[in-house]
Amino acid sequence: MAEKVKKIALLTGGGDCPGLNAVIRAVTRTAILQYGYEVYGYKFGYRGLYNNDLVPLTLESVSGILHRGGTILYSSNKDNLFDYQVEEDGKIVKKDVSDVGVENLKKEGIDTLVVIGGDGTLTSARDFARKGVNVIGVPKTIDNDLEATDVTFGFNTAIEIATEALDRLHTTAESHHRIMLLEVMGRNAGWIALESGIAGSADVILIPEIPYDINKIVDKIRQRESEGKPFSIIVVAEGAKPLNGEVVVSKVVADSPDPIRLGGIANKLAIDLENLIKNHEVRSTVLGHIQRGGNTSTYDRILSTRYGVAAVELINEGKFGNMVCLKGDTISYESLENVIGKTKDVNPDGELVTVAKKIGISFGD
Amino acid sequence: MAEKVKKIALLTGGGDCPGLNAVIRAVTRTAILQYGYEVYGYKFGYRGLYNNDLVPLTLESVSGILHRGGTILYSSNKDNLFDYQVEEDGKIVKKDVSDVGVENLKKEGIDTLVVIGGDGTLTSARDFARKGVNVIGVPKTIDNDLEATDVTFGFNTAIEIATEALDRLHTTAESHHRIMLLEVMGRNAGWIALESGIAGSADVILIPEIPYDINKIVDKIRQRESEGKPFSIIVVAEGAKPLNGEVVVSKVVADSPDPIRLGGIANKLAIDLENLIKNHEVRSTVLGHIQRGGNTSTYDRILSTRYGVAAVELINEGKFGNMVCLKGDTISYESLENVIGKTKDVNPDGELVTVAKKIGISFGD
Amino acid sequence: MAEKVKKIALLTGGGDCPGLNAVIRAVTRTAILQYGYEVYGYKFGYRGLYNNDLVPLTLESVSGILHRGGTILYSSNKDNLFDYQVEEDGKIVKKDVSDVGVENLKKEGIDTLVVIGGDGTLTSARDFARKGVNVIGVPKTIDNDLEATDVTFGFNTAIEIATEALDRLHTTAESHHRIMLLEVMGRNAGWIALESGIAGSADVILIPEIPYDINKIVDKIRQRESEGKPFSIIVVAEGAKPLNGEVVVSKVVADSPDPIRLGGIANKLAIDLENLIKNHEVRSTVLGHIQRGGNTSTYDRILSTRYGVAAVELINEGKFGNMVCLKGDTISYESLENVIGKTKDVNPDGELVTVAKKIGISFGD
Amino acid sequence: MAEKVKKIALLTGGGDCPGLNAVIRAVTRTAILQYGYEVYGYKFGYRGLYNNDLVPLTLESVSGILHRGGTILYSSNKDNLFDYQVEEDGKIVKKDVSDVGVENLKKEGIDTLVVIGGDGTLTSARDFARKGVNVIGVPKTIDNDLEATDVTFGFNTAIEIATEALDRLHTTAESHHRIMLLEVMGRNAGWIALESGIAGSADVILIPEIPYDINKIVDKIRQRESEGKPFSIIVVAEGAKPLNGEVVVSKVVADSPDPIRLGGIANKLAIDLENLIKNHEVRSTVLGHIQRGGNTSTYDRILSTRYGVAAVELINEGKFGNMVCLKGDTISYESLENVIGKTKDVNPDGELVTVAKKIGISFGD
Repeated sequence: MAEKVKKIALLTGGGDCPGLNAVIRAVTRTAILQYGYEVYGYKFGYRGLYNNDLVPLTLESVSGILHRGGTILYSSNKDNLFDYQVEEDGKIVKKDVSDVGVENLKKEGIDTLVVIGGDGTLTSARDFARKGVNVIGVPKTIDNDLEATDVTFGFNTAIEIATEALDRLHTTAESHHRIMLLEVMGRNAGWIALESGIAGSADVILIPEIPYDINKIVDKIRQRESEGKPFSIIVVAEGAKPLNGEVVVSKVVADSPDPIRLGGIANKLAIDLENLIKNHEVRSTVLGHIQRGGNTSTYDRILSTRYGVAAVELINEGKFGNMVCLKGDTISYESLENVIGKTKDVNPDGELVTVAKKIGISFGD
Repeated sequence: MAEKVKKIALLTGGGDCPGLNAVIRAVTRTAILQYGYEVYGYKFGYRGLYNNDLVPLTLESVSGILHRGGTILYSSNKDNLFDYQVEEDGKIVKKDVSDVGVENLKKEGIDTLVVIGGDGTLTSARDFARKGVNVIGVPKTIDNDLEATDVTFGFNTAIEIATEALDRLHTTAESHHRIMLLEVMGRNAGWIALESGIAGSADVILIPEIPYDINKIVDKIRQRESEGKPFSIIVVAEGAKPLNGEVVVSKVVADSPDPIRLGGIANKLAIDLENLIKNHEVRSTVLGHIQRGGNTSTYDRILSTRYGVAAVELINEGKFGNMVCLKGDTISYESLENVIGKTKDVNPDGELVTVAKKIGISFGD
Repeated sequence: MAEKVKKIALLTGGGDCPGLNAVIRAVTRTAILQYGYEVYGYKFGYRGLYNNDLVPLTLESVSGILHRGGTILYSSNKDNLFDYQVEEDGKIVKKDVSDVGVENLKKEGIDTLVVIGGDGTLTSARDFARKGVNVIGVPKTIDNDLEATDVTFGFNTAIEIATEALDRLHTTAESHHRIMLLEVMGRNAGWIALESGIAGSADVILIPEIPYDINKIVDKIRQRESEGKPFSIIVVAEGAKPLNGEVVVSKVVADSPDPIRLGGIANKLAIDLENLIKNHEVRSTVLGHIQRGGNTSTYDRILSTRYGVAAVELINEGKFGNMVCLKGDTISYESLENVIGKTKDVNPDGELVTVAKKIGISFGD
Repeated sequence: MAEKVKKIALLTGGGDCPGLNAVIRAVTRTAILQYGYEVYGYKFGYRGLYNNDLVPLTLESVSGILHRGGTILYSSNKDNLFDYQVEEDGKIVKKDVSDVGVENLKKEGIDTLVVIGGDGTLTSARDFARKGVNVIGVPKTIDNDLEATDVTFGFNTAIEIATEALDRLHTTAESHHRIMLLEVMGRNAGWIALESGIAGSADVILIPEIPYDINKIVDKIRQRESEGKPFSIIVVAEGAKPLNGEVVVSKVVADSPDPIRLGGIANKLAIDLENLIKNHEVRSTVLGHIQRGGNTSTYDRILSTRYGVAAVELINEGKFGNMVCLKGDTISYESLENVIGKTKDVNPDGELVTVAKKIGISFGD
C-alpha cells in the first residue's frame, strides 16, 4: 500500500521581521525536495487557521523571496485562538476557539503545523501541542531577547540599519556641535541599542536594563567637550528608563493620553537634555518601522535558512512539540514547554556592556 | 616684481548637507593645483569670520573627505553679521558687525570669500559684495528649492535615503496590511517627498504646494483595498498642509506649545487617518536628521565637484558677486543680486506631478 | 458605436539595464489607468515578436518591479528581424523576416509597439516605422552615449556601483601602498569611467576618447609618491586604448585568441604597470556584470518612470515614429529617423574632463 | 616609588581586512582609558618593528576609524623577521633579524606587542614569544578558516559584499537566461563561497573542500531548465578544484605562465561550461579586491571591538603568549603555541553544506 504523502502547514505570527520569508522558503524547499511533503501556508497567522485560509506553497511560490523582508503569508499581531475575539449574539466576546483550529487541520489533512513567531505566538503553539497537534516552533523576535536561543533572525538586519543611521547622524552632530539622539527598538531588552551603539560609535547607550541618571549623561557630554569633542551621539532603546522611574518631561508631553505616539523617549529626553545643557542643540530621531523591513542581511538569510531546514528535519524525525534554536554555532532544539516566557535581558555586568564601558561608552549609570 | 599670491577663504553656513565637503575639496584642489592660491577656511560660517577663526586648507587637509557628509569647516545656522547678537553693557543686543568681517578679511589679506550656503547665508554674501568684498556664492539647499539653479547638491542623497526608507516600509505595510506614513524634509517645497515618492512607489504624496483633503486620502486607500491591495504607503513633506488650513489633530497635540517637536505632521495625520479608516493600523515614521548625513551619493559628489571647480574659475576670471549654478546640464553663474529670495516650488501642474498622477499616485487633491 | 480599445505592446532589446522594469511599469500603469488601453509584452525582444510570444501586462503583473533591475519581458542581444537567423532546408541562413513581425502585430490587433532598447534595437524600430508600424522608442544604454538624449536610465545606477567599488579599493590601496585598477564598462564611450572616477576619487581615468601613454600614468604615480601618497587608484573603461594603438602586454596574453575573455584591459595594464613601476604591487579588478543588475538607483527609477509616461503620451497624441528623450531637465522626443547611429562620446575638452583635470586627475595624456 | 607606565605597541600583518581599524581603536581606547598605558603602532607590520618605525596612538588618532576598512598602521604581506630579506655585501640574502626587533622593543621600552594577523604573522608572534617577548595575538583572516576561533572579523563583511554581488547577477541571469559565475575569495577554505552562496541564492557552490565534476554542474543547469528556470547562478571559491585535479581549460589559458592572473577559475570554468552547454551564454565575474575593503559591517565592528578589549585585558592580567578568540558566543583565548598551522576547512558533511544541499544547492559532487 502506498504511503500517504505528508502535508505540513506554516504560519507566521506577531510583528514582521527580516528573515521570515527565508524560513518559509527553506521549509518549503526542504520539505518538497528532500521528503516530498505537500506544503501549505495559513494566511495572517492563527486567524488564517481559524478561517481555514490556506494557500499551497510550492517551489515557484517561494522563488525570489529569500532576501525580502516581511512575510508572504502575512501576519497578525494579536490573534490568539485560545482567547479569540468573536461576535456572538451581536456582541464582541472573547472565547477559546482553538478547537476550530484543530478541526481545520484535520479537515485538510495537515499532519504538522510549523509556527514561526515570538513568545505570544509560540505560547499558542505550545497549547496546540498540548491538544495533540504536531507542532514545530521557529523563534522570531527582532529584539533578540529569547533565552532559549543565542540569536534570532532579524536582529542582525535591525542593528545594521540602526548602525547606518548612527553613521549618518555623526556627520551632522560633528558639523553643528550637536547632541543627537537615536531611538531604536527594545521595549524590554536593550540588545539593539547596545550592539548598534557599539558598532555605530555612540557615546551614550541607554537601555531598559540599566536605568539612567540624566545628570550622568550631562557629565559625559561635558567630559567630551573638555576633550575637544563638542558633540555626542546617544542611542536610546524605546524602553529606556530613568533611575527614579520617571521621565522628566515637559508637562504637556507627560499629560498626553498617548505619549509614546507623540514621539517616544528620545524626543522627551531631547527636550530635557536641551534644558539642562543649554550650550548645544539637541536633536532626536525615532528610527521606528524602518528597522523591521526591506532587504534581509546576509547573516539573517543564513540563520533563517538553517532554522527552516532544521524545522523540517524535526518533522522528519517525528520530534514534535519542539522549537529550533541556535546554541553557540550549533543548530539545536528545545521543548516548547521549556521556552515560553523566558526572556534574555542584557546583563549589566555581562561581557558586551563591559566591552562598551571599557572603550568609554556611558550607560548613564 | 613678483606677483602677490592670491589668498582665498571659504565658509559654510546653514544646515549641513551632503556635498559640502566635496565643494571644499574641489575649491581647495583647483585653487592650489591650477592657480597656486593660498586657501583658508573660516570655522562655523560667518561666526568664524567675525571671530577671525581661520584655518589653512591644504591638499592634505581635504584628503579623504570627498564622500563624507557634513562640513569640515563646521556650520552655524543663524549667524548673520549684519544683524549679529552681541553682548553690550551686560545686555544681549543685535547689531550690524559686518565691518568686523571686512576688517578681518583685510587683516589676513584674503582676496576672495567663497560662501557656500542657502538663501540666508547667500543674502549676507550679497551684502558683503555690496560692501566691496570679492564674493563667490555656491548654492546649498537639501530641499532643491532655489530658482537660480536646476539642481542643488545634497538633494539626490536625501531622496536616495528617503526612497530606501520607503522600500523598507513596503514589506511591513504589505505583511500587516497597514497604512504607513513617512515624513520627509520639505518645509516650503515638496521636492523630496515628490521625487522619493515616485521612486519609492508611494500611493499618496503630500506636499506644501498641494493642500490635501484627508477624505481624498481615505478614498485612495479604499480604492486600493478594492483592487486587492489592502495597504498603502504615504510620503508626507514636513510642510504638507490640509486644504482647510488646519491639521485635524487630537486636542492634546494641537494644544501643545511645540507640536512639531512632538512628532510632526505625519504623526498627527496617522492619528487622524486611523480614526477615519478604522479597519487598518496606521503607523508613521519621521525620517528626520538621517536624511542629511552620512555618505554623499555619487550624483552629489560629481555636482559638488563641478560647483567647486567653477567657483575657482570665477575667481580666476575676476567675476565676483556671482553664484555658480546648474542650468540643464551646463554649469553657469548668476549675479547674487538676482538670486536672493527666489525659491522654486513644485508646480502642481508641472511634468513631475503630472507623471506621478498618471501612474496613479494621489496628492490628496 | 463603441470605440475600439487600443492595444499596445512593449518589448525590450539588448543588454539588460536597471530601469527597464520601471519603464515597463510606467507604460503599463499610465496606459491602463489614464487611457484604458490593453497592454501586452513580447518576450525576448524581437524574437518574441517573430514567435508571437505575447503576454498580457496588468497592474498586477507590474506590481513590485519598480526597483528591480533586469526586465520581466526578458531580452535578447542580437535578434534583428530584418536580418534574422533561420533554418531553411537544413541550413542556417539570414533573411528579412520583418513581415512576420508586422503580420503578428496585425493578427493580435496591436496598434502600437513600444520598443525599449539601444541603437541596434531602435534601428529595427525605425525600420518597422518605415513599414508603417506605429512605433514609439525609449532609449536604453547603460553607457549614456546617445546623442539624442542627455541622460539614459541605468547609467546612474552603474556609476553608483562603480563608485562604491572605488571607495572599497581605496582602503586596500592605502593600507598596502598599492596601485589598484578598476575596469568598468564603456567600450566606445568613457562616461562611466569618467563620472565614477570623479566621484570615487580616482587618480587616473583612462577612457577610449583619450588614448593614454603608459609613461604618463607612471609619472602620476611617481608624483603622488613624492607628495606622500604612495598608492594610486586607476579607473579604466573597457575600451581604453594606448596612444600608439597597441596594448603593451606580455606575449602570452597578446597571443591569446580571446584576450578580452582573459581579463580585460585592466588586467593587461596591471601587468605592464608592475613591470614598469617595480616598487609597488599593482592589482586589478574587473567589475563586469555587477554593474548592470540589482536594485535600480533612485535617479534611474524617476527617469525611467518619466520616459514610460511620456511614451504613452506620445501614443495618445498619435505622435508615432518618435523616441522619448531628456533635454536638460525636460522630457521631449525626437524622430527615430534622426537619432539612429548618433553616439555621444566624451569630449576631451569638455567641462567634465576639464573639471577632473583641474582637481588633479590624470587621463594619461 | 611611582609605578612605571606600561607601553604597548600594535602591528598589523598580512592582507588587509575590514575590522583591523576597529581592533586598533578598541585596544588603544581601552589601554588609555582603563589602564593609562601608552600605546604605539609599528607601521607596515614586522617591517616597522625592524625599522623601528613607530607612531604614537592616541584617542585622537583612532577617532573616526571604527567603520573604515584597511589599517591605519599599514600592512605588509611577506615580511618575516625570522627569515628577512636584507642586502648584504651588495647581495640580497635572507637571514634571521628577529634580534633587531627584540632590541627595538627594549630600546623604546615597549612592554607588550599586540600582533594582529593571520597564520604567518602569528607564527612570528609565537616565535617572538619564545624569545621572551610579551606578545598578545589577535586572529585575522577574511577566509574564516582558523580552527582556534569560531569567527574571524572581516568574514561577515566579505560575505555581505559577495551576497550583494550575487543579488545583482540574478537580475541579469534571469533577463537573459544566462549562466552567471561569481568567483570569490577562498584559496584553501570555501567559507565565503558557501555562506554567500546560501545567502545569495546560488544554484551551485564550488569550494576547495568538495572537488567538482563539471558534468554534475551541467546536470543541475539542465534540471533547472526542465523546471522552467533557464538560468543559473554559480559561486566559485578561487581554490575550487575539479574532481580529476585538472581544470579543463582551453589550451591557451592552460599554457599561460600566470593563469590565475589571467582571470581565475571562474573565467576558465565559464569557457568550459559554455562549450558543454551551448544553449546558454555563460558569463563570469571575479569579485577580487572589492571583497576586502570599504566600510566594515556591523557584525565585524562589534567582533573586532570585543577582540581589541580582550587583548588589553590579557595584557592587564599578564597572560602573554596567547591569542584572543571566540568560542560560541564567548570571548576567550588560547596559547599561540597551540593555534599555529591549524586551519578550519569546510566539512563536506557538516551542517552548513547539508543545509545548502537540502534546499537544493549543488556542489558539483
